[in-house]
Amino acid sequence: QDWRGRSKVEIFQYVFMKWLLCFCIGIIVSLIGFANNLAVENLAGVKFVVTSNMMIAGRFGMGFVVFSVTNLVLTLFASVITAFVAPAAAGSGIPEVKAYLNGVDAPEIFSLRTLVIQIIGNISAVSASLLIGKAGPMVHTGACVASILGQGGSKRYRLTWRWLRFFKNDRDRRDLVTCGSAAGIAASFRAPVGGVLFALEEMSSWSALLWRIFFSTAVVAIVLRALIDVCLSGKCGLFGKGGLIMFDVYSENASYHLGDVLPVLLLGVVGGILGSLYNFLLDKVLRAYNFIYEKGVTWKILLACAISIFTSCLLFGLPFLASCQPCPADALEECPTIGRSGNFKKYQCPPGHYNDLASLIFNTNDDAIKNLFSKNTDFEFHYFSVLVFFVTCFFLSIFSYGIVAPAGLFVPVIVTGASYGRFVGMLLGSNSNLNHGLFAVLGAASFLGGTMRMTVSTCVILLELTNNLLLLPMMMVVLLISKTVADGFNANIYNLIMKLKGFPYLYSHAEPYMRQLLVGDVVTGPLQFFNGIEKVETIVHVLKTTNHNGFPVVDGPPLAAAPVLCGLILRAHILTLLKKRVFMSSPVVCDSNTLAQFKAEEFAKKGSGRSDRIEDVELSEEELNMYLDLHPFSNASPYTVVETMSLAKALILFREVGIRHLLVIPKTSNRPPVVGILTRHDFMPEHILGLHPSQSRSRWKRLRIRLPFLS
Amino acid sequence: QDWRGRSKVEIFQYVFMKWLLCFCIGIIVSLIGFANNLAVENLAGVKFVVTSNMMIAGRFGMGFVVFSVTNLVLTLFASVITAFVAPAAAGSGIPEVKAYLNGVDAPEIFSLRTLVIQIIGNISAVSASLLIGKAGPMVHTGACVASILGQGGSKRYRLTWRWLRFFKNDRDRRDLVTCGSAAGIAASFRAPVGGVLFALEEMSSWSALLWRIFFSTAVVAIVLRALIDVCLSGKCGLFGKGGLIMFDVYSENASYHLGDVLPVLLLGVVGGILGSLYNFLLDKVLRAYNFIYEKGVTWKILLACAISIFTSCLLFGLPFLASCQPCPADALEECPTIGRSGNFKKYQCPPGHYNDLASLIFNTNDDAIKNLFSKNTDFEFHYFSVLVFFVTCFFLSIFSYGIVAPAGLFVPVIVTGASYGRFVGMLLGSNSNLNHGLFAVLGAASFLGGTMRMTVSTCVILLELTNNLLLLPMMMVVLLISKTVADGFNANIYNLIMKLKGFPYLYSHAEPYMRQLLVGDVVTGPLQFFNGIEKVETIVHVLKTTNHNGFPVVDGPPLAAAPVLCGLILRAHILTLLKKRVFMSSPVVCDSNTLAQFKAEEFAKKGSGRSDRIEDVELSEEELNMYLDLHPFSNASPYTVVETMSLAKALILFREVGIRHLLVIPKTSNRPPVVGILTRHDFMPEHILGLHPSQSRSRWKRLRIRLPFLS
Repeated sequence: QDWRGRSKVEIFQYVFMKWLLCFCIGIIVSLIGFANNLAVENLAGVKFVVTSNMMIAGRFGMGFVVFSVTNLVLTLFASVITAFVAPAAAGSGIPEVKAYLNGVDAPEIFSLRTLVIQIIGNISAVSASLLIGKAGPMVHTGACVASILGQGGSKRYRLTWRWLRFFKNDRDRRDLVTCGSAAGIAASFRAPVGGVLFALEEMSSWSALLWRIFFSTAVVAIVLRALIDVCLSGKCGLFGKGGLIMFDVYSENASYHLGDVLPVLLLGVVGGILGSLYNFLLDKVLRAYNFIYEKGVTWKILLACAISIFTSCLLFGLPFLASCQPCPADALEECPTIGRSGNFKKYQCPPGHYNDLASLIFNTNDDAIKNLFSKNTDFEFHYFSVLVFFVTCFFLSIFSYGIVAPAGLFVPVIVTGASYGRFVGMLLGSNSNLNHGLFAVLGAASFLGGTMRMTVSTCVILLELTNNLLLLPMMMVVLLISKTVADGFNANIYNLIMKLKGFPYLYSHAEPYMRQLLVGDVVTGPLQFFNGIEKVETIVHVLKTTNHNGFPVVDGPPLAAAPVLCGLILRAHILTLLKKRVFMSSPVVCDSNTLAQFKAEEFAKKGSGRSDRIEDVELSEEELNMYLDLHPFSNASPYTVVETMSLAKALILFREVGIRHLLVIPKTSNRPPVVGILTRHDFMPEHILGLHPSQSRSRWKRLRIRLPFLS
Repeated sequence: QDWRGRSKVEIFQYVFMKWLLCFCIGIIVSLIGFANNLAVENLAGVKFVVTSNMMIAGRFGMGFVVFSVTNLVLTLFASVITAFVAPAAAGSGIPEVKAYLNGVDAPEIFSLRTLVIQIIGNISAVSASLLIGKAGPMVHTGACVASILGQGGSKRYRLTWRWLRFFKNDRDRRDLVTCGSAAGIAASFRAPVGGVLFALEEMSSWSALLWRIFFSTAVVAIVLRALIDVCLSGKCGLFGKGGLIMFDVYSENASYHLGDVLPVLLLGVVGGILGSLYNFLLDKVLRAYNFIYEKGVTWKILLACAISIFTSCLLFGLPFLASCQPCPADALEECPTIGRSGNFKKYQCPPGHYNDLASLIFNTNDDAIKNLFSKNTDFEFHYFSVLVFFVTCFFLSIFSYGIVAPAGLFVPVIVTGASYGRFVGMLLGSNSNLNHGLFAVLGAASFLGGTMRMTVSTCVILLELTNNLLLLPMMMVVLLISKTVADGFNANIYNLIMKLKGFPYLYSHAEPYMRQLLVGDVVTGPLQFFNGIEKVETIVHVLKTTNHNGFPVVDGPPLAAAPVLCGLILRAHILTLLKKRVFMSSPVVCDSNTLAQFKAEEFAKKGSGRSDRIEDVELSEEELNMYLDLHPFSNASPYTVVETMSLAKALILFREVGIRHLLVIPKTSNRPPVVGILTRHDFMPEHILGLHPSQSRSRWKRLRIRLPFLS
């Protein structure tokens, strides 16, 4: 209701500022992304060059010491700053952003401190050669930037800007955070369309339909491809290659036919199984870590150091297991590579030979992905090396994710997927026309599909990464299959992590038992409400004894004949009123003079994690006996449902409209005007099944495999 | 409520069928799309080959006669079948699908008849060299296929299938139609991801946020591109080209730098202005056509024929204006081309020369686009030819769209945009590093942005068309600018057409004056409601005298102490009850025996345009005096709002949850339990401003330019 009073100038300011903010988010996020990459490449690059030079000089022991000590120091730095300065910066950040956009406000997740630690911590953790990614933290960073800009700076550090006062509400801030997270993905993979789709698919409630649309279009892509294969052999009259507008500028590359569908199906199934296994193991490991973390901060840092040392040993030691390969005569690059990246690492090998496992494992993740995706290198890597690399990545990334440092999952998953994709390609050998680089790309797609269960955005991100749209039909098939297979086993990785963190995430689909229940069945506890003109003492008492965030305001007999619902008032707004101390000595409706003392900004939403507390408000005995008129400050048109509404339908309303409090009104008129208030906690399966054990889950358990398909 | 009784087997059937349907939609739509292209290419191809052969033999007059008569016959065929068999198939079909997904059920739009005419009519109209596209009709075709499959076949032609009985409800059918329309775009451009985005952007209410997300990611893409330009010159240490994962496999092509941003901005602005001009003119022409069409079907067909003859004259005559060009010595293709497509049409020219205008204009649209988009042809077309081609396309497509035949807008807009893009490129000449083919692509993007105002999906469709992801940053800029510029002038083309057709389309954003109004302010007319147990006579009378589709059911004094709202019953369900004649002689609650006579399918939603009418129900005098218990058949949990809810908030509820009837309940308890019922018509600006002229638009008119930016 603060909106109505806005003048035209203010509306213009608002619109202009919103665009300007989006622009600033884009600029800042891309600068951060670039700086992040620059720093990682240079830090890790120098480390690898120094170590390699020592090894060329034969000083292997010294090389190992330098390598592992550098890694340890970087890891220690990352975990110490994360653990002591901003614990909210640990992990991927995507679950936090997702939960925030769903309506769950975790404390501190978007503070300036978190942002800074997220950036620095991620740079040093990735430079430490830990098997973690930077995409997740970039998404979190983007969301932080957006949130901080939207708040007009960080209040704690006095960096505020008055023009931004319009954005202090949930709706605008959510929009900005969505933009920020999309910008984060765009900056980490240079994939702008992928970023948009990521935000839509992962951050909103639309995924069910999106997936089905995607399925339809995938079928179209495949059938057309097959039909055009037929026509290319000249059986379609004047049709030739024309008609379906498509400019096959690069058709010389990536040729494939219907016969290649079988290996692609195989990859999809394997990816789905491995992906769900990955999720299962990661969930277990994180639970174990949580158990360790309860013992104190020291344990967190010790664990990070242990994993760093273990990683260093593996990365340094494993390549010695691989035999040296003679350099191919027709190599396009220098062999062995002396510098940093490249396909042919010399490692311990004699001149003219290279160590293929070192090229993969003793390298930054980005370079490893490049090596795996590269084409025309079918005979460069050997079964043993790729298999060792896959196993290492699979387990190391599971153990590395949970450490107290900003750590993403995208890159490890891509590396792991690419390695087993390439392995499958090598096993199939000459039975398939596809080259091994292509298999690696498809393997990455299948593993992404199996763990993260995103289809459209993963597909576009990978296409934007490889810049080859001709892969599209195959990639779509792989993703759909791996997602379907994996959905049969468990939930997607981010949902598992959110559940572990205890976020009350609201899913878009209603569970079947919600159809059997009415709204009235889940309303619990005594309802706390205020009269339109309420005694200050009562207000303070209620605020102190409950932790609700919204209270219905009801007009009683003196003001209305029968009790009437006036609106809903938020705890934060009441606190602002109490702080202002605009009390009246008698219960009368307040006049416009009193109202004029308030400006809309005072009721604006505070930055995350910085809400006022009732304990901070000190009132005298005299003030406690005065009255407060809540009418002008309550939301006069809250969303309501009748108590006989089915719970499933109420959930749709709650989810689609994106509200925090839903008032339940009675069916018959001879009862109080409000019978309860629903929040997201009331829709949690645990809560509902706790109240109604008869609607036991067991009855539905057997349907679990099929439920993910239900929209 | 028919859902509660479902068994597990039925749920499995449902899920399985839904996926199977999506699969079938994909298969059928791609087959139709392929057949469409095959037919058009062969029909138009034979026509062009025959005509060209005659011209090579010097028989120009004969060539013209063959050309124009073929075109006329094809146009006549298309317009006659459209006008007489299925008038709903005329036009692009996208506005109809969009309106349907918004909740507007136009009669016959998804019938089998419309589908068949749509396919055949579009093939013959496009083959007739009219300047119309096939993407729009393909979208409509996809939606028809989806809807017919969802209904389980067409009842009129007795092609029904019992397994599909589950899909006879709004929600499922809308989902399927969305899939179908995405499949349509995917099939016409071989652009699956583009299809998904098209469905999301154009068909849903999400576009506002989508656009803003897109803006953020565009900024990221551009900044990163610029920074990498800097790094390519070797100033970033070990960074090189690495870090930001991106495999520039094809980087030899499409190189561009920051300096090329200026021409791109220019293209965006020009595209925006031309696009809004195009929309303005098309709107006027369609209004004029509507005026002519009111005179009868004959006029419709005559108009189509006139346009066909005019088009034939232009296409055949204009190339004679262009001077013959000598064939370039280093031409990659045969010159002049003798066959059908290719860059060098011989036309009237002597051997060794070609007519550049004929290559563009005397060709199918697809081939013209290919010629315009082709690179390394900077000196092949001349100013005059491209300009003539642009002007012809611009006006011809405006006049061609409105004829009574299935006619799309995508392809004409792409052709027009590509021609002026190329023209701008030629004017800039050596001042830009970009080649003219690239300018053509960007021109097409800007014109699409200016007319259709879709950003993300247009971008992806064009990328999928040209298979060159490196164009992405420039294309994003062009689209954002042209959309912004054009939004300052008028609405997007599909919204204009929908308004012209009178569809009550519900926009996702609330107009500012809606914030000032309460729900109670727009509720009109006397409310018709039924008692829980109602006399048949009353029901029939109310159904005959009103045309409401939903009625609240209220329990009066005999059954409840005070009037209580029981639910909402739909006209269609009442009609089913009346037809069954399960009446009771006295007003008592009906028992389970009566209920057992009904199966859920009987209440399923009928196919579009095939609803029962009250006039068809004949009841005897005795039956009219009997009673009907409406309780078991009404929706017991309808969505409700309190009358003091702000109209803007009610609109959000209405739009997001996607409902058709919203019950308004009173604030105080001493009034009847329902005070009104809101439908989409009550949210139309015309209706609201008619009721409240004081909230005149003039006050807000000056804000119109800015309003599209408001979400």
